[in-house]
Amino acid sequence: MLKILETAMSYRAPVRDLAFALEAVAGIDQVAATGAFADYDADVMGAVLEAAGQFSEQVLAPLNRPGDLAGAKYADGAVTAAPGFVDAYKQFAEGGWTSLTASVEAGGQALPKALELAAYETVHAANMAFGLCPMLSLASIEALEAVGTDHQKTTYLTKLVSGEWTGAMVLTEPHAGSDLGALTTTATPNGDGTYALNGQKIFITWGDHDATDNIIHLVLARLPDAPAGPKGISLFLTPKFAVNADGSLGERNAFHPVGVEHKLGIHASPTCVMAYEGARAELVGRPNEGLAHMFVMMNAARLAVGVEGVGIAERAYQHALAYALDRRQGRSVWTGEKNAPIFDHPDVRRTLGVMKAKIAAARAICLSTGVAADLAKHAATEAERKAWKGREDLFTPIAKAWSTDIGCEVASLGVQVHGGMGFIEETGAAQYYRDSRIAPIYEGTNGIQAMDLVGRKLSMDGGESAHALIADMKATLIEIDRLYVGKPVERLATAIEAVEDATLWLLDAKADATRAADVLAGADAYLKLMGDVVGGWMLAKGALAAKARLDAGNGDPVWLQGKLDLYELYAANVLGHVSSRLAAVGQGGDLLQGLSVEALAG
Amino acid sequence: MLKILETAMSYRAPVRDLAFALEAVAGIDQVAATGAFADYDADVMGAVLEAAGQFSEQVLAPLNRPGDLAGAKYADGAVTAAPGFVDAYKQFAEGGWTSLTASVEAGGQALPKALELAAYETVHAANMAFGLCPMLSLASIEALEAVGTDHQKTTYLTKLVSGEWTGAMVLTEPHAGSDLGALTTTATPNGDGTYALNGQKIFITWGDHDATDNIIHLVLARLPDAPAGPKGISLFLTPKFAVNADGSLGERNAFHPVGVEHKLGIHASPTCVMAYEGARAELVGRPNEGLAHMFVMMNAARLAVGVEGVGIAERAYQHALAYALDRRQGRSVWTGEKNAPIFDHPDVRRTLGVMKAKIAAARAICLSTGVAADLAKHAATEAERKAWKGREDLFTPIAKAWSTDIGCEVASLGVQVHGGMGFIEETGAAQYYRDSRIAPIYEGTNGIQAMDLVGRKLSMDGGESAHALIADMKATLIEIDRLYVGKPVERLATAIEAVEDATLWLLDAKADATRAADVLAGADAYLKLMGDVVGGWMLAKGALAAKARLDAGNGDPVWLQGKLDLYELYAANVLGHVSSRLAAVGQGGDLLQGLSVEALAG
Repeated sequence: MLKILETAMSYRAPVRDLAFALEAVAGIDQVAATGAFADYDADVMGAVLEAAGQFSEQVLAPLNRPGDLAGAKYADGAVTAAPGFVDAYKQFAEGGWTSLTASVEAGGQALPKALELAAYETVHAANMAFGLCPMLSLASIEALEAVGTDHQKTTYLTKLVSGEWTGAMVLTEPHAGSDLGALTTTATPNGDGTYALNGQKIFITWGDHDATDNIIHLVLARLPDAPAGPKGISLFLTPKFAVNADGSLGERNAFHPVGVEHKLGIHASPTCVMAYEGARAELVGRPNEGLAHMFVMMNAARLAVGVEGVGIAERAYQHALAYALDRRQGRSVWTGEKNAPIFDHPDVRRTLGVMKAKIAAARAICLSTGVAADLAKHAATEAERKAWKGREDLFTPIAKAWSTDIGCEVASLGVQVHGGMGFIEETGAAQYYRDSRIAPIYEGTNGIQAMDLVGRKLSMDGGESAHALIADMKATLIEIDRLYVGKPVERLATAIEAVEDATLWLLDAKADATRAADVLAGADAYLKLMGDVVGGWMLAKGALAAKARLDAGNGDPVWLQGKLDLYELYAANVLGHVSSRLAAVGQGGDLLQGLSVEALAG
Repeated sequence: MLKILETAMSYRAPVRDLAFALEAVAGIDQVAATGAFADYDADVMGAVLEAAGQFSEQVLAPLNRPGDLAGAKYADGAVTAAPGFVDAYKQFAEGGWTSLTASVEAGGQALPKALELAAYETVHAANMAFGLCPMLSLASIEALEAVGTDHQKTTYLTKLVSGEWTGAMVLTEPHAGSDLGALTTTATPNGDGTYALNGQKIFITWGDHDATDNIIHLVLARLPDAPAGPKGISLFLTPKFAVNADGSLGERNAFHPVGVEHKLGIHASPTCVMAYEGARAELVGRPNEGLAHMFVMMNAARLAVGVEGVGIAERAYQHALAYALDRRQGRSVWTGEKNAPIFDHPDVRRTLGVMKAKIAAARAICLSTGVAADLAKHAATEAERKAWKGREDLFTPIAKAWSTDIGCEVASLGVQVHGGMGFIEETGAAQYYRDSRIAPIYEGTNGIQAMDLVGRKLSMDGGESAHALIADMKATLIEIDRLYVGKPVERLATAIEAVEDATLWLLDAKADATRAADVLAGADAYLKLMGDVVGGWMLAKGALAAKARLDAGNGDPVWLQGKLDLYELYAANVLGHVSSRLAAVGQGGDLLQGLSVEALAG
């Protein structure tokens, strides 16, 4: 009904911020220094980000709202992508965006993971529903590169890398979600080395569509003689269409979608219910090790979901900023202007500044995780690779959960900045609020991430990775002490101390098998504590780098000063949370155990 | 697509919790003790809550999801309510639910405001879109009781009280939202004592519908000779159909809806764009004092919106609790059960417990504000009435903003508890997430509430009301010290101290005219601090009352023990926020003022 701001509906890829995060905070130069990425240098980074940003702005962003309105459609056993999506996907594949990090042997460009993540942030920001399609192909690529046979690599992997086909992750069943060990889909040997899959799967993102000729499903199922539970699950590959020896497509396989879900958001991403009725499949990797193989792609997907959170937050933030600059109400206490832009009201500017600071923090966490993943594979020594692998593992659940929480929070604040207009669907802010809400849920709920962090990641190496992180943060604190006076320093110091206290408390509790519930009761708070503090550390590193550039006269001084200010804003508005997080980490399980259904039911 | 839990979709009015909040926390006995409510006693309270709960459960709740799907419809200059809503409204009016607090002279039941709020919580929980219709009638009733002429009372007020007609608040224009002073709708004298209204209004909730024969609009507009800005706004009453001297309806008035908005949520509540084209109107109250008159109903509406937040949170919570008891995944660390209800996982139970505790806190704040409103009118002495008015004024922005933030937060956690199912619209959790999002926006955004709190309410009486509150909280602290040991006591002590520090800091800053931006920069954090701490105080009062009942063997011991546990859980998970809030209160405006568009734009 109401006039919408055309300008606010457009998306501008934050190329300068992305490059800053990669270079000045995440340290992508260390990745380049390994020599493992022959085709990578700073110029390539700039070119990739520019090109990705342009594609996202010009091709993907304009399809976002129409895709939300039309949605993907199911009819007669097949899914049709939302209008414009098939053509956009073909351009996307032709542009080489599905092959950035794949190996040269598989037809890829062998670029760093961290760069791919930065490029994909613009994809998810422009069109989160679209971005899910290639995101799942990338995860499939990662799994096949790791454990695929030569035949599987030649036949399927190369087509996923080229983007001619897409990949889907097929895990969940109605009674096996967070607990995949409960799944019941069966794989029966056909006698010729292939298997027949039978079962029903749900929540299969882009499980069917009309954007490519073929779709490769990576499916978790049980062999006939498999042990019960998680140790009896194997990974299978089943193509929508059989692939002949010459690479041409053969007959349609025996699986098909039986419907798509009606969802709160990401309407243009088909979430399929899939039926496998004797679908011909190949084993991928080793029998009964399917969960481990799947976790190769799951970890990549979790980090990618974290980047989704950053992307949707950036989109929502830009929308809100544009509105705040355009919308005029009331007198500004700063400028004295009557009917001033609401940007000139302190509470609105604080809101926008905190949104921006949190986005920068989440972005830096995700890209740092990407850098760690690159270095875990390519750092010079075994010891370095192990240390970086520890950092990657420790950061992955934080990157996933904290960034997706930020995605929802920033999208909600974006609605709020718009006032009443934010609640009107035509404005666009509401879509981000709806779309963002899935990211804390899929690829392992954020509660599962917290359990992964305290249950596995924290103690996987006796706490070594956590202590290494604390040491790194303390090193930055010393430098920050030369940059700021008073509270911005004290707050980071207190925050790092809180991480140390919480870490020691948890490691202690974990050493006592009777205290499992204490550990789990504090898991969510510990993850949030880590996110808040690591995020602050990232902004502090950004502030130090900005100061160095300012001193060297290297770059736009207003924009660089912004990096220093954002750290300070974050310190005042976010780092204070740590005492609350610390209290909740240590709350213990007893009180919770005593909370009865009767008391909770009212 | 997926089987939904029928049980989870139903709503059960929390009558026992509501009665506990009224009696044990808000202190409704003080209202009864004034003697001003002749027909009120504890039995009446119980009967009203039971009957309201039953109506909400049986008539309103079943219409909630169908109403979301169908929505209110606009066609050919008229709005049609969602299916079933007209009949439900007629039953609602016949049940006397529109007349609870109105004066006996106007045909009302003259019951306490606090009781009405408790009864309406069940209405909003069952069907938030429906509840908005009578909520706005109640606000109109309040305005006409306060400043209507005898003619207006006889002609319009009685019909609003009986529910035969509904009322609408008509304030916003495209360029006059938070800043109503900018509105341009005109009122031109017709020469016969009536006025002709001309202008366009937006966001008019239930501005048109087919549930009643007539609709009474209370409209803000400008007289020809009115001063510019907020001091030139008058309040007018204009009926959809003229009312003849005998009370029968005459000709259709010259205003009509020109469309309804497509919104994120509350689809069954028509949000109308209204055009007034010479609509015949009466002046209500005094010329150019329209804003002051409107604020009589605005304050009532703000408190009612706070209750909406509580209601939608309660609904989302019940839904999530039912799912958590039904859904089985993984082994419980407590019971050892394999494939245990997710309720038996510590993080899920913590989530549910914190949801419940926050709802109880928000409910108690809202109902305490209602009690304060009742006592502000009816307490024995002028000094008492003044003190209670101060409490009501201080609490109103907190009740509105903090409770509606809780509404969104709990609705979001409700989605999360459902995992992937939460994102599927059929499950129902997503609707609460969508519906709840409007409450922090309308009747003054929560940012506006924060400005009201620090700008007007805090210092209206030299800070006396704030100091009285702090003194009351300290008195409870002494009692709590006898009930708990260690942290539950320390945390409340620290929290009250934080309120005191923040209050003094703000009063100090407010005394310096050059520090207006400092005050505004801390406004949001101060409101949140107050909400967190006052909420904790409310739960502490509940714990004390529960302990007394336990000791007296008066009531279900499991349920009463829950009140003690909820305070403790809240202390561990929420009260720790205060140090963060305190830091943000005092952040000052300078850093924000320096944050340039260029820095924020990336």
